[in-house]
Amino acid sequence: MKHTTSITTNQKVASLAHGYPHAKRSFNYKQAFKLESGNVLHGFHLTYETFGSLNKTKNNAVWVFHALTGDSNPTDWWSGLVGNNKSIDPKHDFIICVNMPGSHYGSINPLSINTESGKSFLHEFPLITTRDMANMYSLLQQSLGINKVKLGIGGSMGGMQLLEWSILQPKLFKNIVLIATNAQHSPWGIAFNETQRMAIENDPTWMNSNPNGGSNGLATARAIAMLSYRNYMPYQVTQHETSPNSIDSFKASSYQQYQGTKLTNRFNAHSYYTLTKSMDAHNVGRSRESVEAALQLIEANTIIVGIESDLLFPIAEQRFLANNIRDAKFETINSIYGHDGFLVEYAQLSYILKKHLKA
Amino acid sequence: MKHTTSITTNQKVASLAHGYPHAKRSFNYKQAFKLESGNVLHGFHLTYETFGSLNKTKNNAVWVFHALTGDSNPTDWWSGLVGNNKSIDPKHDFIICVNMPGSHYGSINPLSINTESGKSFLHEFPLITTRDMANMYSLLQQSLGINKVKLGIGGSMGGMQLLEWSILQPKLFKNIVLIATNAQHSPWGIAFNETQRMAIENDPTWMNSNPNGGSNGLATARAIAMLSYRNYMPYQVTQHETSPNSIDSFKASSYQQYQGTKLTNRFNAHSYYTLTKSMDAHNVGRSRESVEAALQLIEANTIIVGIESDLLFPIAEQRFLANNIRDAKFETINSIYGHDGFLVEYAQLSYILKKHLKA
Repeated sequence: MKHTTSITTNQKVASLAHGYPHAKRSFNYKQAFKLESGNVLHGFHLTYETFGSLNKTKNNAVWVFHALTGDSNPTDWWSGLVGNNKSIDPKHDFIICVNMPGSHYGSINPLSINTESGKSFLHEFPLITTRDMANMYSLLQQSLGINKVKLGIGGSMGGMQLLEWSILQPKLFKNIVLIATNAQHSPWGIAFNETQRMAIENDPTWMNSNPNGGSNGLATARAIAMLSYRNYMPYQVTQHETSPNSIDSFKASSYQQYQGTKLTNRFNAHSYYTLTKSMDAHNVGRSRESVEAALQLIEANTIIVGIESDLLFPIAEQRFLANNIRDAKFETINSIYGHDGFLVEYAQLSYILKKHLKA
Repeated sequence: MKHTTSITTNQKVASLAHGYPHAKRSFNYKQAFKLESGNVLHGFHLTYETFGSLNKTKNNAVWVFHALTGDSNPTDWWSGLVGNNKSIDPKHDFIICVNMPGSHYGSINPLSINTESGKSFLHEFPLITTRDMANMYSLLQQSLGINKVKLGIGGSMGGMQLLEWSILQPKLFKNIVLIATNAQHSPWGIAFNETQRMAIENDPTWMNSNPNGGSNGLATARAIAMLSYRNYMPYQVTQHETSPNSIDSFKASSYQQYQGTKLTNRFNAHSYYTLTKSMDAHNVGRSRESVEAALQLIEANTIIVGIESDLLFPIAEQRFLANNIRDAKFETINSIYGHDGFLVEYAQLSYILKKHLKA
């Protein structure tokens, strides 16, 4: 491959702490990479983690995609689904998860140094679409010598990337599981994201040349996002006022403040801002015949999972996917947690994987 | 009545421009008024509008309650329901609508002068609960010499006030129509309001001693609120992207920005902040036996209206009202507009009024 000489892989020592090989590596691509927007990245790096070992026939790869504020360790954020004796098990599977570009958990992101200027990108970070992400992952996949992925699985924004990649390379995945995701981000979803960016833009520190700029705005953005991840019922159940005579300082208020602050301790406004833009730009129909025609290109055995109570990615969006991807199977999850159900409902997700992927 | 001498009414010249008497008046209460919080207002004023004439038997009063950012003119914001030849018609009815205290459209609010300090209240404005509001309205009602109100009607936060008043004075209303409202504001609703206040608090101008302080934060707050007033479908229908290849600057984004800015041109962050606190504190069960027992005190003929697609005040809340208010009738409105349906679905609302109030 033309670009082989421009790739370096920084392999850290693999750990066996959990009884299986676990490594965190960096993939460095040193050539120019053209983005959908027309902008060019002068190289990029991706951080990814692997769990388990690639077998000799290289047919046991499972590629997991994380969502907006996740990272490359699904044994952490998807612990009920990925790990020892779970549906996705490093004893049998070679599990790969890449930190999505834009996110600061290792891959190129707004806090990275722009080699052109020698300073952090910050507000100059270019838009990386979910299609760009899939094209970047493809370079890593080729460098790993994997030509067939047994299973691709992702929810929400993770599902967006997997969907794009399954269209770009119809023969790459044997099976794909797309959870609580869509073919094109909705006006409703964009409105939620835009409102979160408004909160960040109103933070007086946002325009500072500082990686911590906009952190109070980020807290508000996260509080807004929580409203889209949940819905009436989980708030009713978990944030119900226990004192019948309260007049102020309600539990639900503290919860919003807490969730906001909690994210600012582990995330930054710059990554958040650009990743919500990536999500908004997700549209498998762009520069193709149509959304439907794009979905028809998928050759993988496809399982679509929707959550009945999902406010942000309503189940109609997953029905649309199932109706337009050839031979797709459609499953629903019952959860009071709304969109967050994809991070919570392990028993149902495990059952669905077992049912459709037993071979 | 003890307080009679302390009331002044500033009557402006009534207009006949629309073929019926229309007046905007101010009710000034000059005594101390104790609030539920324990704070005391050293007098207050309410601005209210009347449409039509009170008949000799004083039995044609219709009291209309506006919602969060509304004002005392329902022929404007409820034009399909209130006006010539509408369900509520100034030719027959004496229509009263008070600007709710806290709102700057005429009544006491954070921009008013605090007689104690000689300066605007701003951040010092005390919490006025929906129960306080009802008690304030009662003083005006007594001064008008009206002992029976033919019909009370209000949606959302307007309905909250009407509900409180119907419990405080069970014999005052002959009929009440409560639309898209609740007995106690939900953790979900409080979470939405808190998130909006977070956006205001993050505005660097919010803590300035300035009536315009926090206006950018208010724009974000309004954008958040729009998400609760609507839902997936109206955004899909009205903000759908027309260009299939867009990568940024989506219609739904402009819409959020536009709605935010639009409100800042007619509202202020201080009123918005305190009114959302009033809404959060709404709980007819407070300092009473229970929510259910409070609802049992209502004697008015009660019509409860819910909107199937209402995200903010889900229809379960109106079913709860209907199940706990004696002989209440329950009606639903079909609307794609979610909570905003109460400001839009005139034909259905008119039909419901006609059906239940023909006598």
